[in-house]
Amino acid sequence: MATTKKNGTEISSLGEFGLIKQLTDKMVYQQPSTLKGVGDDCAVIRETGAKGEEPVKLVTTDLLLEGVHFNLEYVPLKHLGYKAAVVNFSDVYAMNGTPTQIVVGLGVSARFTVEDIEELYSGIRLACERYGVDLVGGDTSASMTGLTISITCIGEAERKDVVYRNGAKVNDLICVSGNLGTAYMGLQLLERERLAYRGAETLIGDRIDAFKDREYLLERQLKPEARRDIIAQLREAGIHPTAMMDISDGLSSEIKHICSQSGVGCAIYEDKLPIDIKAAEVAEEMNLNIVTCALNGGEDYELLFTCDIKDYEKLVPLEDVYLIGHITKPDYGTILVGRNGEELPLRAQGWEAF
Amino acid sequence: MATTKKNGTEISSLGEFGLIKQLTDKMVYQQPSTLKGVGDDCAVIRETGAKGEEPVKLVTTDLLLEGVHFNLEYVPLKHLGYKAAVVNFSDVYAMNGTPTQIVVGLGVSARFTVEDIEELYSGIRLACERYGVDLVGGDTSASMTGLTISITCIGEAERKDVVYRNGAKVNDLICVSGNLGTAYMGLQLLERERLAYRGAETLIGDRIDAFKDREYLLERQLKPEARRDIIAQLREAGIHPTAMMDISDGLSSEIKHICSQSGVGCAIYEDKLPIDIKAAEVAEEMNLNIVTCALNGGEDYELLFTCDIKDYEKLVPLEDVYLIGHITKPDYGTILVGRNGEELPLRAQGWEAF
Repeated sequence: MATTKKNGTEISSLGEFGLIKQLTDKMVYQQPSTLKGVGDDCAVIRETGAKGEEPVKLVTTDLLLEGVHFNLEYVPLKHLGYKAAVVNFSDVYAMNGTPTQIVVGLGVSARFTVEDIEELYSGIRLACERYGVDLVGGDTSASMTGLTISITCIGEAERKDVVYRNGAKVNDLICVSGNLGTAYMGLQLLERERLAYRGAETLIGDRIDAFKDREYLLERQLKPEARRDIIAQLREAGIHPTAMMDISDGLSSEIKHICSQSGVGCAIYEDKLPIDIKAAEVAEEMNLNIVTCALNGGEDYELLFTCDIKDYEKLVPLEDVYLIGHITKPDYGTILVGRNGEELPLRAQGWEAF
Repeated sequence: MATTKKNGTEISSLGEFGLIKQLTDKMVYQQPSTLKGVGDDCAVIRETGAKGEEPVKLVTTDLLLEGVHFNLEYVPLKHLGYKAAVVNFSDVYAMNGTPTQIVVGLGVSARFTVEDIEELYSGIRLACERYGVDLVGGDTSASMTGLTISITCIGEAERKDVVYRNGAKVNDLICVSGNLGTAYMGLQLLERERLAYRGAETLIGDRIDAFKDREYLLERQLKPEARRDIIAQLREAGIHPTAMMDISDGLSSEIKHICSQSGVGCAIYEDKLPIDIKAAEVAEEMNLNIVTCALNGGEDYELLFTCDIKDYEKLVPLEDVYLIGHITKPDYGTILVGRNGEELPLRAQGWEAF
């Protein structure tokens, strides 16, 4: 039951997904161009003048708040700008689309200089250049508190190519790209150094030794990339995923979204989870369970997708794509199969910032 | 010359528009679908599958921050949600388009309850229902500080119908809808009562007398409407404005945008400015110059447009549209012609919140 405070219910008692569900449950769509509203990586909007192939526009938005989503003590502004743009591109790729434009809302308090904002923007521009995306508009405003970055990304796709979260079918294969939990371990490293060396002039500069050989982990946290290369490979191989999303809140949370929206269950195999060796090393050093980190650490921005089992042969040669399990009937639940064959229900920790 | 602080330039030395110009000056567009980027009410994006009539998508974004754009001491959450949506619709109408979808980013601190956010959303939903717009996505997140609302609106138009800011020509007529400075006077009323009756349980409820007969002013501030009726009238009358924008920062600031982007000057006649009688009354009571308020008071969300002088006959019968001046050669400057014929340069106060 939801807890109440003063005159109402605490948001923490519902959580992010519960709140969104409650707010959008009664949503009725009036526009014929709205093909898909709330509930996926992007909304899907039909082009009104489209004939034949029926291209669609994709729309996604992200709000990044200082102190919640980033800590400027160790996040360089240029990296922050880059990441803020890229995580939006990632949502468009996760629909099997191509990001084409962004608009940027910026709230800036007086402690920032013009040079600071230039630095942030240079990161946004760099991401745009690399991914072929145009920055087409914005809203810049004073803020009484910290830095606020809101980015909305528009993308394109053919309607028949769009991949939703709700298309996974029993016996489909479950795959992920890259590796899992690495961005989270990068964050742990940064946090440890921040606490240990508070007051050092520049955290990364002064304490460079602490990060030696672990630059990759930091990069995964500070400057992630969106996996357009995976989308390109899938297209080339002729694989049309049945469901797809990007991993921003951790694998457990995301696969549970796919399963609940598709009305299926899943088996994920612990020993199939792709884990970076350096990430595992740091986890051990910090006395963390790397499997838990891989399942629940956020911000990997890797792609999670399911595809028909008949595509297996086409999957094998793909680079940096890993088969981690398969889709089951719904009554099986969403299960992690351990190294010794034990079956544990997957738990989505997700977002609990309230 | 820009002032510098610590290691850089204070943002206040550039102002909002200077900052945006500096950030976006070097912008290069790579996407063939980008027809118009930064610098108008909306970005304009070509539909990739469009044939013949060539419909386009319009995109605009607004970031609203507590303590900067709204004060929850007197802004009811439902009104805030309504207004946050409507100001975005207004930007789409200002391009001569129709708003069709929005996505909403929300940053909420723990002091808000589920019921609070429901209230805010109910306002957003009401605006969407009234204007036929679909809420198709969002991002809800914890905030360490106040309430943050980011709305991005998508709209539709035929490419040939889109009206930019840069099309005003010498001798064009300058018109505005509604009245000017009224929302600003509503804000002054609310602020006066807030300061006088700090501590009252509900400001508006307890001090209802102070607002008697002035509800219209409050409504203009708290719950503005977007002028789709004006767009419909123009269309029906066969008038295609040469330039248009909505008035969010005050008439002076907006007409100067049109003039600088169109490479023209203007003459605005003081005695033609549409001013609400109640607004004038309150201004006198508060010892404010109502003309200054009409020129520089923000948040009217009326439409400012220019049209060819040959459309004059068609303009006359339009409801709630006022002819306030005409476009001149650029060397005339942007001028306010006073009641006695004196010529004063228009000054844009605009946004100086840093």
